Amino acid sequence: MTKTNLNSDLGESYGAWTMGDDAAMLAVVGTANVACGFHAGDWSVMQATVAEAVKNGVSIGAHPSYPDLQGFGRRPMTMSNREVEALMAYQIGALMGVATTKGGKVTHVKPHGAINNKAATDMDLAMALARGIAGVSKDLIFLAPAGSAMVTAAAKMNLPVAQEVFADRNYDDDGNLVPRGQPHAMVHDNDEALRNVLRMVQERAIVSVSGKRIPCNVDSICVHGDSAGAVSMARHIRAGLEQAGVKLVTLPEMLA
Amino acid sequence: MTKTNLNSDLGESYGAWTMGDDAAMLAVVGTANVACGFHAGDWSVMQATVAEAVKNGVSIGAHPSYPDLQGFGRRPMTMSNREVEALMAYQIGALMGVATTKGGKVTHVKPHGAINNKAATDMDLAMALARGIAGVSKDLIFLAPAGSAMVTAAAKMNLPVAQEVFADRNYDDDGNLVPRGQPHAMVHDNDEALRNVLRMVQERAIVSVSGKRIPCNVDSICVHGDSAGAVSMARHIRAGLEQAGVKLVTLPEMLA
Amino acid sequence: MTKTNLNSDLGESYGAWTMGDDAAMLAVVGTANVACGFHAGDWSVMQATVAEAVKNGVSIGAHPSYPDLQGFGRRPMTMSNREVEALMAYQIGALMGVATTKGGKVTHVKPHGAINNKAATDMDLAMALARGIAGVSKDLIFLAPAGSAMVTAAAKMNLPVAQEVFADRNYDDDGNLVPRGQPHAMVHDNDEALRNVLRMVQERAIVSVSGKRIPCNVDSICVHGDSAGAVSMARHIRAGLEQAGVKLVTLPEMLA
Amino acid sequence: MTKTNLNSDLGESYGAWTMGDDAAMLAVVGTANVACGFHAGDWSVMQATVAEAVKNGVSIGAHPSYPDLQGFGRRPMTMSNREVEALMAYQIGALMGVATTKGGKVTHVKPHGAINNKAATDMDLAMALARGIAGVSKDLIFLAPAGSAMVTAAAKMNLPVAQEVFADRNYDDDGNLVPRGQPHAMVHDNDEALRNVLRMVQERAIVSVSGKRIPCNVDSICVHGDSAGAVSMARHIRAGLEQAGVKLVTLPEMLA
Repeated sequence: MTKTNLNSDLGESYGAWTMGDDAAMLAVVGTANVACGFHAGDWSVMQATVAEAVKNGVSIGAHPSYPDLQGFGRRPMTMSNREVEALMAYQIGALMGVATTKGGKVTHVKPHGAINNKAATDMDLAMALARGIAGVSKDLIFLAPAGSAMVTAAAKMNLPVAQEVFADRNYDDDGNLVPRGQPHAMVHDNDEALRNVLRMVQERAIVSVSGKRIPCNVDSICVHGDSAGAVSMARHIRAGLEQAGVKLVTLPEMLA
Repeated sequence: MTKTNLNSDLGESYGAWTMGDDAAMLAVVGTANVACGFHAGDWSVMQATVAEAVKNGVSIGAHPSYPDLQGFGRRPMTMSNREVEALMAYQIGALMGVATTKGGKVTHVKPHGAINNKAATDMDLAMALARGIAGVSKDLIFLAPAGSAMVTAAAKMNLPVAQEVFADRNYDDDGNLVPRGQPHAMVHDNDEALRNVLRMVQERAIVSVSGKRIPCNVDSICVHGDSAGAVSMARHIRAGLEQAGVKLVTLPEMLA
Repeated sequence: MTKTNLNSDLGESYGAWTMGDDAAMLAVVGTANVACGFHAGDWSVMQATVAEAVKNGVSIGAHPSYPDLQGFGRRPMTMSNREVEALMAYQIGALMGVATTKGGKVTHVKPHGAINNKAATDMDLAMALARGIAGVSKDLIFLAPAGSAMVTAAAKMNLPVAQEVFADRNYDDDGNLVPRGQPHAMVHDNDEALRNVLRMVQERAIVSVSGKRIPCNVDSICVHGDSAGAVSMARHIRAGLEQAGVKLVTLPEMLA
Repeated sequence: MTKTNLNSDLGESYGAWTMGDDAAMLAVVGTANVACGFHAGDWSVMQATVAEAVKNGVSIGAHPSYPDLQGFGRRPMTMSNREVEALMAYQIGALMGVATTKGGKVTHVKPHGAINNKAATDMDLAMALARGIAGVSKDLIFLAPAGSAMVTAAAKMNLPVAQEVFADRNYDDDGNLVPRGQPHAMVHDNDEALRNVLRMVQERAIVSVSGKRIPCNVDSICVHGDSAGAVSMARHIRAGLEQAGVKLVTLPEMLA
């Protein structure tokens, strides 16, 4: 039976500020990428997010970032690879500590924002991230964009790796995301998003906007929950996958 | 053979700023309380501190604080007990993550500054700290001031507990520290400090400034390293203890 | 002709997080209390808020806080009076710098959250706030809760002072706010809020929940805008005041 | 009579951490660049630094930075030009507010660290900095590396501009600093530094390490104070300039 995993970036509230509809998304996805306090998510938000994830049987991962609360981790910056390793270990460990208090377990890591974007093509940075993760535990799954340098880096460090695609983005013929700002970068239609996701899951390939099929392990689908429209798309995709007989599982179950 | 443990607050540098002579102190003490980024100590400082501690065979503990970098965690503040629990878990976990990358293991927790002072007499806060620690691991030793509410709280939570005394402070006849600002609050003389420490270790009691003996488990001696004088006192105490045949051990060895 | 001033706490977004409907409120109020980066409001949020205030002819004030982004400035903490003075000067100056870039002028200061609550009854802290404000400019209006220690402190420092009442809160017979959590603490009904405000403005007195009249300069009415209900109440009060022939002015116009 | 100005980066302590010997340097220089809380310097450090500067008759400037306390503002990062303008206005204003409380006046701005390095050659960023400064006040002197894009940007914005050279650095034949890490990048010898400075001041030119003379307004000499050696070099240069009959003035006096 075909199976897949839906993941979403959650726990991105901070103090008095709320972001996203985590309760809604935790009923849709199998896996939560939880902010670790550096771009969003304080200790209390993290604890509440983990508690809800545990209740929903959703697997938990760290979503570490550059230290950039005001910029939400979207600001490219320069750090030494050595510092990046420590930065990863700190954030992953922090979530592990908080998760344990709620009976949760951190099973994967997905870098957030600017550091993720840069490491998609920067092999040195990708290796620093992989070393940071492996330094904490060799059992942590590295959840990385399909075909990115991080997939290679994870393999080199003997980390389990899961490749993700995005439900609301189109791909070009090289398997890269159509850059934001270009026509067809985003998929706004729920049915179109579902069709894309179904093909990628069933054909085990990225299908580009022009129709080209690029074979690829598609282990997880990233869905967003930061707007009402995003939650609706996520629900539509889940329902469509189930209707098509695709089994929805957690990330560890996906790689099992 | 009588044994004891020396502990010190280390890893209190931050970014470009240096504090204390950690290299010197790691050659003196058996146990390091490592700042976790909330009053001092960033991810890189934490990693470097843990690496040195491991090299020196020094046991490692988390030294968590209120979120107060500018005030060095010395600023009393009000947080809910629930938030305190998450705050502890975050910082302990962060150090665990970083420690693992250097082959180190976090074996105890000693709260820092204002939260430690308040929890010495505030049973509710002491219990929140104990729950935060126990939520991460029931094996973590709670290192707390001798006779404080935290000792009771740790026992209630079935956490291993170690009671510490201060080498550079005098005690009153109730077993409390003579408050800073009062005469005899501080011990400035190396020989006097050593004499006090030796009596407390050998007689298993706090000896007050007036000579009163208050029986008490003295599991660990806190020594400071933030000035040349402090390092010199720490070395003097260690040498004096060794000369008196007291074996210096790590905190886990002390409780073993 | 009777006149009054409506003020609201604005610019409380931060980075990627949004709070309140500032655009709506800037069309209602005559005066904006702008967060200065310590409990909310970064440099860009501040600049956008000031630009909108200038466009709407709304007078601008600093809304300084304890350094407590994660706690939204609601966390009581201990700082020396000397440090409080510098803390005020820093935040007021920062808003002045940003306001100037948009042709705006900072004409008042209203402390935020825990520091405001504490200074309502703590005369030492109230004086420290007044010294901090006066140190920057003797022309800045100190906007303070009616009858609070800050009103006295402002007078002592020869600062212009404006006393505010709250549209959505009831008062007891001593002129203090009915504490949150008690029955009748909050006014939820728009008409009731308008009636209270009209009486306070027209009779120049606080009218307690039991009907007692406490004479008092009522210079400004604080209205909130952090929910749809709050914006609706603010609009209702403004419309009602205008219908009753009360002229709505800025804070400097109120004191002129 | 030939005159010149010595400037130094001061107020770089933070909370419990001390950096540099500000007291010593304020007796040597005519101008202080004061950290504004984003790479170093909190409200209290700023206030103490300004108070000392005023006592010593030293002119005061803002030393604004990227928001990067942990990286001391040395970490290159990406921000929109619009955000950079607000960032400048915030920090300049904050120092103005604090300076006023001590009878001081902010007369110049010198960007710090990574943002200064980038803007030396990035004309867009240099213009954003100049707009940020001019938005606060057209009277603020832009203190910028000799020959940098910031000198051009300041002129375009009709800001007064002062060009600085570094006492402890060598220049190449294009007038650029010999990059750190290359031989002869740094000048370590006090006499050599004094000779270089004297020639640059007296000949109104940068003199490269190979002896080439590049005519240039040399308005200010940057000296450092972050180590005992640096303070000693600063004192040596001041004494040597005075002995050579060069008058030492503040930055506003230099441009008067």
